[in-house]
Amino acid sequence: MSKVVLAYSGSLDTTICLHWLRTVKGMRVYTFSANVGQPEHLEPLSERALALGAVSAHIADLRDRFAWDFILPCIRAGTVYEQGYHLSSALSRPLIIQELVDLAQEEGCAMIAHGSRGLGNDSIRFRNCVRALAPDLQIIAPLHELGHDAPEDDLEYARAHDLPVESVRQTLFNIEENLWGANIQFRGADPWATPPRETYRMTLPPENTPDTPTGLEIGFEKGIPVSLDGKPHAPVSLIQSLNRLGGAHGVGRADMIENRITGRKTREIYEAPAAEILAAAHRALENLVLERALLHFQEMVRIRYADLVYEGHWFTLLRESLDAFFARTQECVTGTVQCRLFRGRADVARVESTFSRLAQRDTTMIRMPPSFPRDLTAFHL
Amino acid sequence: MSKVVLAYSGSLDTTICLHWLRTVKGMRVYTFSANVGQPEHLEPLSERALALGAVSAHIADLRDRFAWDFILPCIRAGTVYEQGYHLSSALSRPLIIQELVDLAQEEGCAMIAHGSRGLGNDSIRFRNCVRALAPDLQIIAPLHELGHDAPEDDLEYARAHDLPVESVRQTLFNIEENLWGANIQFRGADPWATPPRETYRMTLPPENTPDTPTGLEIGFEKGIPVSLDGKPHAPVSLIQSLNRLGGAHGVGRADMIENRITGRKTREIYEAPAAEILAAAHRALENLVLERALLHFQEMVRIRYADLVYEGHWFTLLRESLDAFFARTQECVTGTVQCRLFRGRADVARVESTFSRLAQRDTTMIRMPPSFPRDLTAFHL
Amino acid sequence: MSKVVLAYSGSLDTTICLHWLRTVKGMRVYTFSANVGQPEHLEPLSERALALGAVSAHIADLRDRFAWDFILPCIRAGTVYEQGYHLSSALSRPLIIQELVDLAQEEGCAMIAHGSRGLGNDSIRFRNCVRALAPDLQIIAPLHELGHDAPEDDLEYARAHDLPVESVRQTLFNIEENLWGANIQFRGADPWATPPRETYRMTLPPENTPDTPTGLEIGFEKGIPVSLDGKPHAPVSLIQSLNRLGGAHGVGRADMIENRITGRKTREIYEAPAAEILAAAHRALENLVLERALLHFQEMVRIRYADLVYEGHWFTLLRESLDAFFARTQECVTGTVQCRLFRGRADVARVESTFSRLAQRDTTMIRMPPSFPRDLTAFHL
Amino acid sequence: MSKVVLAYSGSLDTTICLHWLRTVKGMRVYTFSANVGQPEHLEPLSERALALGAVSAHIADLRDRFAWDFILPCIRAGTVYEQGYHLSSALSRPLIIQELVDLAQEEGCAMIAHGSRGLGNDSIRFRNCVRALAPDLQIIAPLHELGHDAPEDDLEYARAHDLPVESVRQTLFNIEENLWGANIQFRGADPWATPPRETYRMTLPPENTPDTPTGLEIGFEKGIPVSLDGKPHAPVSLIQSLNRLGGAHGVGRADMIENRITGRKTREIYEAPAAEILAAAHRALENLVLERALLHFQEMVRIRYADLVYEGHWFTLLRESLDAFFARTQECVTGTVQCRLFRGRADVARVESTFSRLAQRDTTMIRMPPSFPRDLTAFHL
Repeated sequence: MSKVVLAYSGSLDTTICLHWLRTVKGMRVYTFSANVGQPEHLEPLSERALALGAVSAHIADLRDRFAWDFILPCIRAGTVYEQGYHLSSALSRPLIIQELVDLAQEEGCAMIAHGSRGLGNDSIRFRNCVRALAPDLQIIAPLHELGHDAPEDDLEYARAHDLPVESVRQTLFNIEENLWGANIQFRGADPWATPPRETYRMTLPPENTPDTPTGLEIGFEKGIPVSLDGKPHAPVSLIQSLNRLGGAHGVGRADMIENRITGRKTREIYEAPAAEILAAAHRALENLVLERALLHFQEMVRIRYADLVYEGHWFTLLRESLDAFFARTQECVTGTVQCRLFRGRADVARVESTFSRLAQRDTTMIRMPPSFPRDLTAFHL
Repeated sequence: MSKVVLAYSGSLDTTICLHWLRTVKGMRVYTFSANVGQPEHLEPLSERALALGAVSAHIADLRDRFAWDFILPCIRAGTVYEQGYHLSSALSRPLIIQELVDLAQEEGCAMIAHGSRGLGNDSIRFRNCVRALAPDLQIIAPLHELGHDAPEDDLEYARAHDLPVESVRQTLFNIEENLWGANIQFRGADPWATPPRETYRMTLPPENTPDTPTGLEIGFEKGIPVSLDGKPHAPVSLIQSLNRLGGAHGVGRADMIENRITGRKTREIYEAPAAEILAAAHRALENLVLERALLHFQEMVRIRYADLVYEGHWFTLLRESLDAFFARTQECVTGTVQCRLFRGRADVARVESTFSRLAQRDTTMIRMPPSFPRDLTAFHL
Repeated sequence: MSKVVLAYSGSLDTTICLHWLRTVKGMRVYTFSANVGQPEHLEPLSERALALGAVSAHIADLRDRFAWDFILPCIRAGTVYEQGYHLSSALSRPLIIQELVDLAQEEGCAMIAHGSRGLGNDSIRFRNCVRALAPDLQIIAPLHELGHDAPEDDLEYARAHDLPVESVRQTLFNIEENLWGANIQFRGADPWATPPRETYRMTLPPENTPDTPTGLEIGFEKGIPVSLDGKPHAPVSLIQSLNRLGGAHGVGRADMIENRITGRKTREIYEAPAAEILAAAHRALENLVLERALLHFQEMVRIRYADLVYEGHWFTLLRESLDAFFARTQECVTGTVQCRLFRGRADVARVESTFSRLAQRDTTMIRMPPSFPRDLTAFHL
Repeated sequence: MSKVVLAYSGSLDTTICLHWLRTVKGMRVYTFSANVGQPEHLEPLSERALALGAVSAHIADLRDRFAWDFILPCIRAGTVYEQGYHLSSALSRPLIIQELVDLAQEEGCAMIAHGSRGLGNDSIRFRNCVRALAPDLQIIAPLHELGHDAPEDDLEYARAHDLPVESVRQTLFNIEENLWGANIQFRGADPWATPPRETYRMTLPPENTPDTPTGLEIGFEKGIPVSLDGKPHAPVSLIQSLNRLGGAHGVGRADMIENRITGRKTREIYEAPAAEILAAAHRALENLVLERALLHFQEMVRIRYADLVYEGHWFTLLRESLDAFFARTQECVTGTVQCRLFRGRADVARVESTFSRLAQRDTTMIRMPPSFPRDLTAFHL
């Protein structure tokens, strides 16, 4: 009997995957569910997966790793996809897939399954990450095998096989939320319909926000936010606080036509209060301390970086090398940024750094000796 | 007696230039003053220049050319310098310099003078443009020759030579305004001081704006805005209307550390309501109709374009060639964009175009035959 | 009975396609064969296709269009893929596919077939071009449907169906030649094996070339080569002459690891004497007449252009827009270049142009008025 | 009496500088002369400088540092300026200037002097490097102060002050040679004159090279050449060997129109046998082991890197950050490359690496865990 790891969220579609893999294909299924900061509770998933016949059900709290290993590098790199999307879902994919691959290798599974349909962003990201980490693992997309094109197909399958259908999905908007933001994907006939107010989960509409601004101060160290209003914060806690503060002022909404990996266009609505505030603050600090030529060149690099993340090319030498580039540029991106949240905007009011170049006269240079590692090849000589 | 064309704004510094060129250097001075949409009245300048000894005083209304030949290409190219500055002053320089050069050639002047000091943005732009248009023209910077470093030196010269000093300049903020935006340059000791409310001329503070949003619809044709709320508008009129509408909602403020051409950093505050609204609308329309690969490549091109404009490299083959590139990309950037102005934001609510790719499935391509000009070399054959 | 257009070269694989489409699938097959400068005679193909049951057999001499519409833009853009491949095969694909699509539309065919296997460069280019030109056309790859992975499968099919097998393909090297170059693709076990001398068709080995150099002079007009040694030449004739002259001196060989569209690496050997000479001459002329900033920016653009061509993205707005860019940069790339062919090298000995900037002192500028098309929107106003 | 450090090569122009600084300006002059691999003997310089009145005369053998800290990073980055110049002189400038600055600081000099004239490459590089390393040091260019525009002015000064004029400079070609290559700068009336044979010092003309090729094998470790024909070599020894071997086969000549920093164009002739061989070998190895997306992106980065080096922006955070990028991309650029030198060409015949991707099917990915430094901010938490 062959063994498969399944990315299991408890939704109807991954429930169908689990059922199909076990009963139709007769496989031993190991489910994996990750906490990346979504509001849903994961605890019941374990029981449900086992009830549906899973061999074992794994649940992991990945919030810390999500923040440290995936979100922070993007803050440092100032990465935004198509000038509006802070990559919340895209960034969680390589993390989850890496865990799935690890589990597959531990349990000796030759296969790995996910609940995406067709040739969309997620199935491409899945393939790119798995190929990079474990090229011999076979990828299965049960909904694709079943020929399910739409939620209606799922409902029919659930009825036919007596699967629990807790809540019928919203038909017009498909919402995905994690620590770094929410993604409201539109499905209706009029691509420009106004989503109902309750669609937004992280932000108030700017009309309903307080009449007085909120000021806050973010401390950065080497390009990474480390404190809020003078108090040190671990990344997860800092992001959660900024989501709360920014959301209350309607900060971080984006509503845009986005280009998928395949070139297909969709309307996407995003909420990302913390990401929006941190991006504005980080940029203002960079402008204060980095030389002009570097700032202008960086613009091109961050566009490429955003594409890599969006396309699921996280586990590439190119992404690693761009991170090495940014790690170096950020060595003096240390200081504090005062922001002002008001009516959907996060404006910067004051930036301070011991590395400030504001007083310098006319040089674009810095003082540092070349530092090529001599000992690299020394053992040869 | 040698002849010189002077860029004359009526300000104290250009008044000193005129006086110095005529009395100290004994030159025949032809003044030129341009209307590029600034609020000051130009009519009195002619009389004043002649009273100060100018041979002749030219005044030209360049607003139409400014909009058609300089602002529209930048809208089309989606150009913003360091993600905040819509290049209002920088864009007016090549236009004015081209007129100065034309006048110099008509009047047989071998010299051309301006009121900038030192090696700043404006003197570099002046040199770059003059070298491109008329490399044999000699450039004179009287304030530099006089060793004037600050407005205080000007005041002393004015007193010593009994020159009219209408109004003492603001000492903390130096404001320059034209059709495309206002530039408030900071001079004080605390680089992060809050400018007094009256410093802002084009926009209300978001706190004081109406409680209800204003909706508007902009029509674009080949990347160029041509109508407002269904009514055709010439560019100048369209921009003036959007400045008024946007300013009333506090749209278009930016407050940033900017990198000058020489690499020196300064804090700059900008107001550009029309520019901000048009940029958001144009981008949303492009996202609807342009293929992904083009949109992503364009990002790099527009960064280069902004640098060229900022640095005064307008009269270069590179800028011309980038314009040829954008002229082609914009051929299908035709449609309407509905915007919503509220509390300092210009949000896009709906975009429509006959060239929309929103319904297309998965291609990044368009249908068009190759169109290389065969007849180009035909006469040789 | 359904109708299909087949790209037919007379090779065993396209012969199998024809047989399979007609006998197994029972389709009405219209073959199309193009002369793009390959050495094989196309005349017999018509008879053979009809003998194999084709409804009609079309043969077209596309050499002129190949040169004018595909090769010249690449010369102008200075395009080389991965610094070694002049894109000879890649460039012929969109031309041939455009003809196939036209024929399909004339004959009312809903399908279009080609002889490539698997997910390689050619099948991706085919898909990209067909989707751009006629997204409703269905693409068929008979060898893929048949599960043929290697030439051995083809031979077996031929024997089983009594198809004529004129010459057994070379097993180690697969050669494709056209007007713009030859492509020797390696297949053996040792990826670094030295190909036998007769593998090379267009160039002599540098060891066997004459002891004395050959000098020649190429005239360019707006970036396009128009004359050889003072005599006007049409593009096809010029390229043929340079292939002959360069090949005799061993010019234009490249032997490299190349990255396919999918990222797979292969060793490829190229011969492209005319392309190599023209690239060196064109670059030297550009260096003489173009401003520094433009030359440096162009480097980035030409890398993107090469990728587009290599990937079969010819029929895109991005490629069209890059061509508009290059058309503008090349307006002063007019002059003559003297070259010297010797022992595998094409060196430039002298470059002359009325647009030479060699004597200019220190400006990167040119003199030209802005030329934004005012009449574009005039009819609105 | 003020103190000054002078870059002293023993040439007539730096001899004049020394004389002028000491006798006309009455300064205490400390000379510094560096061995960066030029053929001239430096030993006599010390005696001559002291005879001319220098307070002290320093001579340093910088060949090892030149190779390790400046040449190796450029090999690793694959940097070539305008596709022809391996940056030999440009690379030596930051090294020498860093030593001059160190000496100035040790000796308590507030000034630093060099023998360049006008606003050329070298004086710009000098200014850029000094400003980065010691912005308070004052730069003096005695020949500029003296108004010497040409060698004739120097000769006249030498006669007037009875300075030793050992050899009159060549008037048509000005040659500068170091470990990494020779630079023959043209001065005559016909910009395309053929230089006399003896102008070339490092390479034979391809016509006079042996009839049989020389094969050699270079070993690379992390992008850095470490062995020749299986024998470990320190960088200086490896480069010297390749200069000798390559020069005997006429490898490494370039003859081009080059764009100076200011945009001015000059004809330049280069000889760089080792640089040419190493660049070809390094590129071939990269093509074997690096993923496609990285190779293509790198093209853009290396163009920027070459510009930085050419312009004397070595001591910038941007250059440091690009080095961090390349240090990461090169981690698997380890292997051996067989080359074949013949008639002016260095062709690659075989490349081998344990990181070869030649056999991989279709992935552009590599397997590596994300490696963001967690401990960076750990102390805060």
